[in-house]
Amino acid sequence: MAHAQGGTPLEVPKSNRTMGDPIPETGYGMPIEFESHVTRRRTDVFVNRQNWSDWSMTPLQHQVGIVTPNGLFFERHHNGVARINPDEHRLAIHGLVEQPLLFTMDDLMRYPSVSRFHFMECSGNGLTDWSEAKSVTVQQTHGLLSCAQWTGIPMSWLMAEAGVKPEGKWVVFEGGDGSGHLRSIPIEKVMDDALLVYGQNGEMLRAEQGYPVRAFFPGWEGNTCVKWLRRIYVTDKPLQIRGETARYTDPMPDGKWRQFSMEMECKSVITNPSGGLQLRGPGSYETRGFAWSGRGSITHVDITLDGGRTWREAALEEPVLDKCLTRFRFRWDWDGAPAKIASRAVDSTGYVQPTVEQLASVREIVGFVQHHNGIFPWSVNENGEVTNAIA
Amino acid sequence: MAHAQGGTPLEVPKSNRTMGDPIPETGYGMPIEFESHVTRRRTDVFVNRQNWSDWSMTPLQHQVGIVTPNGLFFERHHNGVARINPDEHRLAIHGLVEQPLLFTMDDLMRYPSVSRFHFMECSGNGLTDWSEAKSVTVQQTHGLLSCAQWTGIPMSWLMAEAGVKPEGKWVVFEGGDGSGHLRSIPIEKVMDDALLVYGQNGEMLRAEQGYPVRAFFPGWEGNTCVKWLRRIYVTDKPLQIRGETARYTDPMPDGKWRQFSMEMECKSVITNPSGGLQLRGPGSYETRGFAWSGRGSITHVDITLDGGRTWREAALEEPVLDKCLTRFRFRWDWDGAPAKIASRAVDSTGYVQPTVEQLASVREIVGFVQHHNGIFPWSVNENGEVTNAIA
Repeated sequence: MAHAQGGTPLEVPKSNRTMGDPIPETGYGMPIEFESHVTRRRTDVFVNRQNWSDWSMTPLQHQVGIVTPNGLFFERHHNGVARINPDEHRLAIHGLVEQPLLFTMDDLMRYPSVSRFHFMECSGNGLTDWSEAKSVTVQQTHGLLSCAQWTGIPMSWLMAEAGVKPEGKWVVFEGGDGSGHLRSIPIEKVMDDALLVYGQNGEMLRAEQGYPVRAFFPGWEGNTCVKWLRRIYVTDKPLQIRGETARYTDPMPDGKWRQFSMEMECKSVITNPSGGLQLRGPGSYETRGFAWSGRGSITHVDITLDGGRTWREAALEEPVLDKCLTRFRFRWDWDGAPAKIASRAVDSTGYVQPTVEQLASVREIVGFVQHHNGIFPWSVNENGEVTNAIA
Repeated sequence: MAHAQGGTPLEVPKSNRTMGDPIPETGYGMPIEFESHVTRRRTDVFVNRQNWSDWSMTPLQHQVGIVTPNGLFFERHHNGVARINPDEHRLAIHGLVEQPLLFTMDDLMRYPSVSRFHFMECSGNGLTDWSEAKSVTVQQTHGLLSCAQWTGIPMSWLMAEAGVKPEGKWVVFEGGDGSGHLRSIPIEKVMDDALLVYGQNGEMLRAEQGYPVRAFFPGWEGNTCVKWLRRIYVTDKPLQIRGETARYTDPMPDGKWRQFSMEMECKSVITNPSGGLQLRGPGSYETRGFAWSGRGSITHVDITLDGGRTWREAALEEPVLDKCLTRFRFRWDWDGAPAKIASRAVDSTGYVQPTVEQLASVREIVGFVQHHNGIFPWSVNENGEVTNAIA
């Protein structure tokens, strides 16, 4: 930075010499106009614009800390955003249970609640970017990823109240939106750490996040966390609906398709610098990024500056939480030469984030790739310009 | 809750039979209309409305989890909200330093950063409510309290770069707003855990929180965390400005006024149920609230249901963080009889939140009381109506 010169008086800025703005009447604040470029963006650059099946992506290159503001939390809708009056909403638990239950929102709000920080990631995060570098920014490559503190009721408490019958092995969660989106979830996950969520980052869910209530399965792909949840149906086997056969499945080398791969594997990405940003000349930069795992906590992140030949350990920022975004940082003294940078994360099970090549050796990476957690590189050229370096 | 009847088919709600809304073009989401009652409120019920010295309060009774959404974070301004173009902003470090420094925001953004969860509380939080029960809701009694994950640069790194001279014992922080608000801070706090903050809850500071940069002193009264920060001036003694003699000071029994009592002492309050809310008949309720301490972490919270005669231990919710809001909860099976409920917190130094009477025995509780951390009670009558039970 510039050094203040000893004899020069500090300039008194205009803001010191003028009255500020009064507190607005609205009672709910918004970001300042100088940050209006920080938005979640629709993806019509890649797919035909479909109002009824659409998504928006989080600007990870602008996110500081681990909490994604609710206004920037990524979206994925199969038939638009339902707007449900909470007074009219009902949630049923039925099927293979001793006592079917029907809840109003007032009923649910009287239960004890817990709040937990967890990431959420779409199974298709980065789906188009493993064979050619179509995306420019990390918002486009990895922006179907966000993190929040979720508040709600442990699902196990409600299931215990309903009394799951011994033959109840799967549980179907169904949404109250126009798509009637639903998924079958193994009873083990439901009874382990699943939540019935009504709060996000200190307030009630936003409409686009499933207001007034959604399912949440920590560490599992976003589409399992059914929004606008209206029923929980206990059954003896998965429904094998289209979302479990034709969608959210992974082609394998043996020609078969892997189903129910809902746990998001350990992954990381450098967000600063990243595509579309520019380093302004050689010097010291803080390399920052996110690491996360659906299987536990992050224990280690390494950074390469030379396209994977050598790796150096990044620092992890506290708190490092289970199934939560974890910030890493590494101080990079850039000498001005072209560089290829990437991060590689390790989780608490010992699993190491794979290279694209390692993943391709055990999976068929074709079409819209689901569950791709490969190491993702950025190129920095001699002008400091950062670009997508995949493929 | 109501039990679903075995033979009745579940109603298919209208939301399942209609298309939802497309993703809006704005790119920054807002709460749903059914939550429009959840706002931060101005306080013109108590004081003359002054656009240039004003505050708004967080709706703690509606907050879930520990993160206060930025749109609901409390405000306190001495001359309105400054709106500063970050490209034009400069921050100086000067005074008793070896090398005066002048930073642009671009300079500051290149430094390594840290992110930490901490509460912020106004020294005057609850100031009018200790002799008569003027306030109705917990938003009015305790709403000058919020919590966020703050992102910025440890102040000690910048001070080390400037090189504080041995005679530099206090540091003045001055804002770039119309009030030119400033405070003198002991060098020990600056070098311990102080932050130069530009990010809050995942995004850049809002205008009303001091965009583009503010001071942050974890656990210390909000007014020390100078917003729109434009200079840091190292000196050998405090300035003894009006904000350090006539304001933010505490009258004591010996007739003198205590100065520089900036550390917020251990405190707690029940937010659910709280004033203005109503229990709907006898039954099981989750009693919830917040506990916090400017001296460390919360180790214990007790609840009374009988006006302080007996106390029972509440559960603390993870993560329990240093100088951060901590959620407590207690399952209350209300029998329908009148009750007087309150919480009492203990922090990691062993300090126990005092009763109003204990505090009055060591302090003069008159006028606009600063730094009042007394135990705060709510009354529940036989109709389930909850009211302010102070005095």
